Amino acid sequence: VLFLANIQPDVQRAVRAQCTGARFAALDSMNLWIEIARDSLVQTIATVDCLVLNDAELRQLTGKPGLLAAAREVLSWSPPGPGVIIAKQGEYGAAMITPDSYFSLPAFPLETVVDPTGAGDTFAGGFVGYIAAAGAEAIDEELLRRAMAYGTALASFNVEEFGTERVARLTGGEIAARVAELERVTHFSDAPIELRG
Amino acid sequence: VLFLANIQPDVQRAVRAQCTGARFAALDSMNLWIEIARDSLVQTIATVDCLVLNDAELRQLTGKPGLLAAAREVLSWSPPGPGVIIAKQGEYGAAMITPDSYFSLPAFPLETVVDPTGAGDTFAGGFVGYIAAAGAEAIDEELLRRAMAYGTALASFNVEEFGTERVARLTGGEIAARVAELERVTHFSDAPIELRG
Repeated sequence: VLFLANIQPDVQRAVRAQCTGARFAALDSMNLWIEIARDSLVQTIATVDCLVLNDAELRQLTGKPGLLAAAREVLSWSPPGPGVIIAKQGEYGAAMITPDSYFSLPAFPLETVVDPTGAGDTFAGGFVGYIAAAGAEAIDEELLRRAMAYGTALASFNVEEFGTERVARLTGGEIAARVAELERVTHFSDAPIELRG
Repeated sequence: VLFLANIQPDVQRAVRAQCTGARFAALDSMNLWIEIARDSLVQTIATVDCLVLNDAELRQLTGKPGLLAAAREVLSWSPPGPGVIIAKQGEYGAAMITPDSYFSLPAFPLETVVDPTGAGDTFAGGFVGYIAAAGAEAIDEELLRRAMAYGTALASFNVEEFGTERVARLTGGEIAARVAELERVTHFSDAPIELRG
């Protein structure tokens, strides 16, 4: 499992080429590379399974104003290329778009945010790390959704203190507790009532 | 069930005073009244069960930068006053905060948004309308969450065409289908794996 964190796309592609055995490769990037190295970035995106960007960058990359249309545009570039698009939405959470599905997850609710620096990177690292930790399990929609929940939980710890202070002393139990809480704060059950008309 | 849509807060309070039999009263407002009629608005908020604002307005009203802290601030004004705070988040959906709970729901994913005008009003109308339509059912957390899902589904139709064109020919079945879809796009199931450390 390979995560190409945000850096110059030529470098990402060179690393990707060395990791021929990766069963899942994800890539993060940023507005700078879309502006000054777009061709190389698009070429690099074609070599991974999953693209992680914030939603403004997805719009910038594709020229599509809507998140869903922007994600579908990148999906239309494949194959080859990513079948999974993750749109980071900062304090609003993240969304995942595949050719057959859409998933949206809010950020973990916090009373106080001390330092949002690195939240997106922590999310992406947690997301990819969960997939790696899941081992031989099939990388299907259900696993990817859970991976997003773990990334979201991890990011929430990251912003509670400066730098990596909080994450450095994090335990597996604390992460799991926030994932369970995320499940509660997003759950509703539909029980249709009689709607006239 | 009473919905005081956004208008000058003295007028809202006068209407509220006439509806002594309302078993649930909700109020929407806007940045203008926070700026030029704050005292009257705060006084009016104290007369309702539910405050609906967008999250920027909640921050403006309370001076708290975080959504959760802002909502808790308004909750601390009661009793009397609202026990339910709804934060509208535009394309990112909406959150509901009560003294004991937090709930977050994304917007319904759409390929194309034609006209976002009135989305927040449609959401609020759908939310309050669902509560009214549920009749004698207890207004508990579960009902409120479902009401948010119906408001969210309604708002998604509203933005697909200009004005009220789309909503005017909407059927109950179409609304229910989007609520069911919302349940699918927000659902994940936690199945913890062995996390080292």
